[in-house]
Amino acid sequence: MNNFTFYSPTYFVFGKGTENEAGQYVSRFGGSKVLIHYGGGSVERSGLLDRVKESLKKQNIDFVQLGGVVPNPRSGLVYEGIELCRKENVDFILAVGGGSVIDSAKAIAAGVKYDGDFWDFYEGKPVMEALPVATVLTIAAAGSEGSGDSVITKEEGMLKRGAGGEALRPVFSILNPELTQTLPPYQTASGATDIMAHVFERYFTNTKEVEITDRLCEAVLLTMIKEVPRVIEDPNNYEARANIMWAGMVAHNNIVGVGREQDWSSHGIEHELSALYDVAHGAGLAVIFPAWMTYVMKHDINRFAQIAVRVWGCEMNFANPEETAKEGIERLKKFLTSIGMPISFAELGAKEEDIPLMVEKLGLGERGTMGSFVPLTAKDVEAIYRLAL
Amino acid sequence: MNNFTFYSPTYFVFGKGTENEAGQYVSRFGGSKVLIHYGGGSVERSGLLDRVKESLKKQNIDFVQLGGVVPNPRSGLVYEGIELCRKENVDFILAVGGGSVIDSAKAIAAGVKYDGDFWDFYEGKPVMEALPVATVLTIAAAGSEGSGDSVITKEEGMLKRGAGGEALRPVFSILNPELTQTLPPYQTASGATDIMAHVFERYFTNTKEVEITDRLCEAVLLTMIKEVPRVIEDPNNYEARANIMWAGMVAHNNIVGVGREQDWSSHGIEHELSALYDVAHGAGLAVIFPAWMTYVMKHDINRFAQIAVRVWGCEMNFANPEETAKEGIERLKKFLTSIGMPISFAELGAKEEDIPLMVEKLGLGERGTMGSFVPLTAKDVEAIYRLAL
Repeated sequence: MNNFTFYSPTYFVFGKGTENEAGQYVSRFGGSKVLIHYGGGSVERSGLLDRVKESLKKQNIDFVQLGGVVPNPRSGLVYEGIELCRKENVDFILAVGGGSVIDSAKAIAAGVKYDGDFWDFYEGKPVMEALPVATVLTIAAAGSEGSGDSVITKEEGMLKRGAGGEALRPVFSILNPELTQTLPPYQTASGATDIMAHVFERYFTNTKEVEITDRLCEAVLLTMIKEVPRVIEDPNNYEARANIMWAGMVAHNNIVGVGREQDWSSHGIEHELSALYDVAHGAGLAVIFPAWMTYVMKHDINRFAQIAVRVWGCEMNFANPEETAKEGIERLKKFLTSIGMPISFAELGAKEEDIPLMVEKLGLGERGTMGSFVPLTAKDVEAIYRLAL
Repeated sequence: MNNFTFYSPTYFVFGKGTENEAGQYVSRFGGSKVLIHYGGGSVERSGLLDRVKESLKKQNIDFVQLGGVVPNPRSGLVYEGIELCRKENVDFILAVGGGSVIDSAKAIAAGVKYDGDFWDFYEGKPVMEALPVATVLTIAAAGSEGSGDSVITKEEGMLKRGAGGEALRPVFSILNPELTQTLPPYQTASGATDIMAHVFERYFTNTKEVEITDRLCEAVLLTMIKEVPRVIEDPNNYEARANIMWAGMVAHNNIVGVGREQDWSSHGIEHELSALYDVAHGAGLAVIFPAWMTYVMKHDINRFAQIAVRVWGCEMNFANPEETAKEGIERLKKFLTSIGMPISFAELGAKEEDIPLMVEKLGLGERGTMGSFVPLTAKDVEAIYRLAL
């Protein structure tokens, strides 16, 4: 096991009706002038935004608001938010929405406290200071409600990049599974795939002897395999929604990742897909992950056999572990198909002829690599895209 | 799933040599005058105390020290610590030791900020304010390094009681598995049993549909079943020690407990054993838990069958699930015996004739109950003690 630090200081408030407590938690965590940040009209139509505002008013907390966050959130709105916060002396940002809204809020929070261009943080500068961010989560997917990460797309060149830092961990996050019940099945399944992908990125590691982290990863995956089909079957299944929503946080606050190398190449490979076609991140991951697994499997057959047996319920083929490993990947594909996810470029609407462009945009050049389980060159990435056709 | 809050703001620093970073973390978390609190001579003999002091000196942090904490820590030293902190204007407490030292430090931290008798907190008053506490952990067991709990024994009447509150969560905890390598097998096994017991108390619940929490519980137990025999076999196995040490934190910061009722009656029943005979808490739990499980099993055969299959690797007996449930308890007993734990009063050195006294000290009276999975009356508790003979 490698040395590590683990820090997840977010105060999580989970359950029915908890959005009505937003105001009291903003008070508790010291907010006096709030930017409410959100996406499209759904939080308005559902009345959620009104309930949140009402809870702020009850605590006599002043606020301004900025909507318009789109999936794969853009830099343009971040600049707008930074300017608004400075003009209005905002000292606290409350994101009401899914991962895109939260990531946009984090970018604004970091930008307000920084003299330079906020995009610096998305080109590798660590975030050391930010306004406090809190969330009222409406989609179980990104795990941004408990993480110190943010992903933003720069309109100029459609560059999709991530930033991170402890200062970006939300001070509190309100998770009410009821709010996810109106999500259409495709979005629900995309979110679920994203959650599982956050675990895969941590599961495939070269660090030996981290059984506790392996087992915690498997716990999240087993939960998803049980619960996701239940919400696809019945979108109003509160209990299944609740399990998925909490699993989404557990999958990405890094409790299932500590003590070892993580990979994250599939996320990078997918980012080019969703940046180019503006498809749901989770749907892109459903296409990339089985291809990536197939491509790298031989690097550690036993690890792929382990996930096949422990997570996918395969019988171990002791005479031929590779067969077990392959069977695990097949079961993942069947699972993704069963919940309505695409598993190929064709199903996603991506095009073979764009592969060279996507590879180029990853910027690996002649000798660069990405990922750690198997460091991938540009040629490897191209092969993975082609496996996904 | 029930509504819940989850808050685990401790900064965990894990791995080899991390005790040398104590000073910089005290600085980061605002300590300027520190009480170093510890137990017996082992932290002195091993040089650990010197390394910690050295790291404080490097940061120019002033400190005083108070040793002498015993297992099942006593109120007397807590009063002494409170007085010392007030006299010396201590603003930060650093516990160097195991659960007893940390619990004693938490009691002092709460007492310093309170005008009344600190024991009030151990009779039910919630702790709202305390000096910041941090830890350098030397035993994987109590989980106090990540929890908001503390258990103290009052000398007058040997009353063993717990207190709790968010203010008692350590601000940082340093976990170096190397420090646990000198522990004798019996203490190692007692600690491991305590860790598993923290999971059992959360696993046996009447709340339905909390799959994610079930799976996380099972993840910790599966890890322990793999790793504990390895350290009993080879005390210097760093990797196994590391997995156990982190599992001990995960087992008790409540990530494996949220969203449902928890039980905790076995801990209460055990407290009377360790208060009366001054035996290791974990050893007492090894005696009590199988008896408790046997006594309450019929309340939910399927839950006991689930743990038997998922954790103990039993084949499900579909024609007779009760057989599977029983087999799970048998495997737990065999496991405990295999790591050198007692599973009966006789092996522990406890006496049948003391049962009425222990039952009386629990203070349930004629109509009181303890626990929630099956609320236990004084008569039930007596039956459980007798099952453990």
